Amino acid sequence: MSAGAEDAPVHVMGIPELEAFLEEHFEQAVGFADVVELGEGALTLRLRSTERHLRPGGTISGPTIFTLADLAFYQLTLSLIGPVPLAVTTQLNLSFMRRPDPGLLEATATMLKLGRRLAVGDVLIEGEEGPVAHAQVTYSIPPPEKR
Amino acid sequence: MSAGAEDAPVHVMGIPELEAFLEEHFEQAVGFADVVELGEGALTLRLRSTERHLRPGGTISGPTIFTLADLAFYQLTLSLIGPVPLAVTTQLNLSFMRRPDPGLLEATATMLKLGRRLAVGDVLIEGEEGPVAHAQVTYSIPPPEKR
Amino acid sequence: MSAGAEDAPVHVMGIPELEAFLEEHFEQAVGFADVVELGEGALTLRLRSTERHLRPGGTISGPTIFTLADLAFYQLTLSLIGPVPLAVTTQLNLSFMRRPDPGLLEATATMLKLGRRLAVGDVLIEGEEGPVAHAQVTYSIPPPEKR
Amino acid sequence: MSAGAEDAPVHVMGIPELEAFLEEHFEQAVGFADVVELGEGALTLRLRSTERHLRPGGTISGPTIFTLADLAFYQLTLSLIGPVPLAVTTQLNLSFMRRPDPGLLEATATMLKLGRRLAVGDVLIEGEEGPVAHAQVTYSIPPPEKR
Repeated sequence: MSAGAEDAPVHVMGIPELEAFLEEHFEQAVGFADVVELGEGALTLRLRSTERHLRPGGTISGPTIFTLADLAFYQLTLSLIGPVPLAVTTQLNLSFMRRPDPGLLEATATMLKLGRRLAVGDVLIEGEEGPVAHAQVTYSIPPPEKR
Repeated sequence: MSAGAEDAPVHVMGIPELEAFLEEHFEQAVGFADVVELGEGALTLRLRSTERHLRPGGTISGPTIFTLADLAFYQLTLSLIGPVPLAVTTQLNLSFMRRPDPGLLEATATMLKLGRRLAVGDVLIEGEEGPVAHAQVTYSIPPPEKR
Repeated sequence: MSAGAEDAPVHVMGIPELEAFLEEHFEQAVGFADVVELGEGALTLRLRSTERHLRPGGTISGPTIFTLADLAFYQLTLSLIGPVPLAVTTQLNLSFMRRPDPGLLEATATMLKLGRRLAVGDVLIEGEEGPVAHAQVTYSIPPPEKR
Repeated sequence: MSAGAEDAPVHVMGIPELEAFLEEHFEQAVGFADVVELGEGALTLRLRSTERHLRPGGTISGPTIFTLADLAFYQLTLSLIGPVPLAVTTQLNLSFMRRPDPGLLEATATMLKLGRRLAVGDVLIEGEEGPVAHAQVTYSIPPPEKR
């Protein structure tokens, strides 16, 4: 048995299509972070933190990290299934490993299993000093007639 | 054995003290939601959603719900241990039960176990039509010399 | 908004029916623990630990606590939907609050939302000295034609 | 930033030492599964399922998968910190992706961050047809004076 038992996934949307999708369907998320890598069932989102991303103690806030993880996995899922706005988070477990200093944050989402109705994967969030958080994520994909 | 095996917790900060704390230490969170109830080891936070809290499909976004759950548990913890800005989330598991329509959201945080270094509890988030999400939360409390 | 926004659930199987179900469909679980309370959307399972439930340090093992939580929520779900052997766990998040000494353990499962395809709830596990663990659980319920 | 920002971890116990440790400190776990690979911050445990590992529907039970994930991460942690029996699970989130048919199961635990007091990582559980479950795990490591 090997970790590569699943076939390599095919991305049906590229970075420009993902950006256009957000602009059309999810303006609240536009400008939050940038997709900097996409391929082989993974997507990396990069955030440059500012004052509004901080929490007491001057480190990056939990909601900022949640937003980054959730958006990375949403965009990864769409890159693999196409533009389905109503794909929604059903579970997101977030484990914090280190208080992230202000600066760059990168979230790399990986797909573990993409079924017709569920997408399961994880997201590793790294700061400039190493891993800061890890998310385990499940998205629900609506059936074709409800998209 | 009964669920009340733990002694009833004592709140050392009230709603006005919690509000003053946010204004002093966490301006990014000011105005996000209001504490509407506090007592017996529980705290309820209320959010009136607006356009910026929405996601594709017109329902309230995951990050909004995460923020509400995290902030409710943070304020509950502080109400029980006093003003410790550096209490931080170490784990937050969020399970979504229903897509929440715009409008009022209430998050009720309950403390399950408050130790010297960890606070563990859960948060039930309800919309106008019933429960919409449930969070399982752990906060880390710094030792006195690091506060 | 109140926590009681959902109608009180109706249990369609009682303790004797749940026991008969396990004997017929799940002999591996027979004798592991006893249902000691059932009603108003909650079920309590009791385990008297023995040597085989322990881990290094002489406290009750993680797998024992997982099994108790999972079985409590499975039986609660069946009590509400009837005998559906193929209801399966899709997510179980287990947070440990205290190392449980040998002796009695009680797990109280509560249903937060019972839909046609998903059941979401939580389980509080208590030992003789108070809460020891908390589980957040989702079960998947097969559609009628696949039962 | 790269995923390899952390230094490659050094394993201080090998497979024979891990087996001897279980025999001395954790007889309940002896024979449950075999360590088949160890290195570069990862450990793979293999289980050959039998009748007692099954649940209704004839697939491998949730508790079996939890036990495999938990034991894989425990042994991985010990391989990196040495024989510390009182290292204990504080959080284990288990997401099920596919009902695993009887047969071989392999669990590969990976360390994401190993601190002095906490170990955080994940475990991918694969059956003969691909990934079946994913665990996000945190272990607490006792301070030297309490080992």
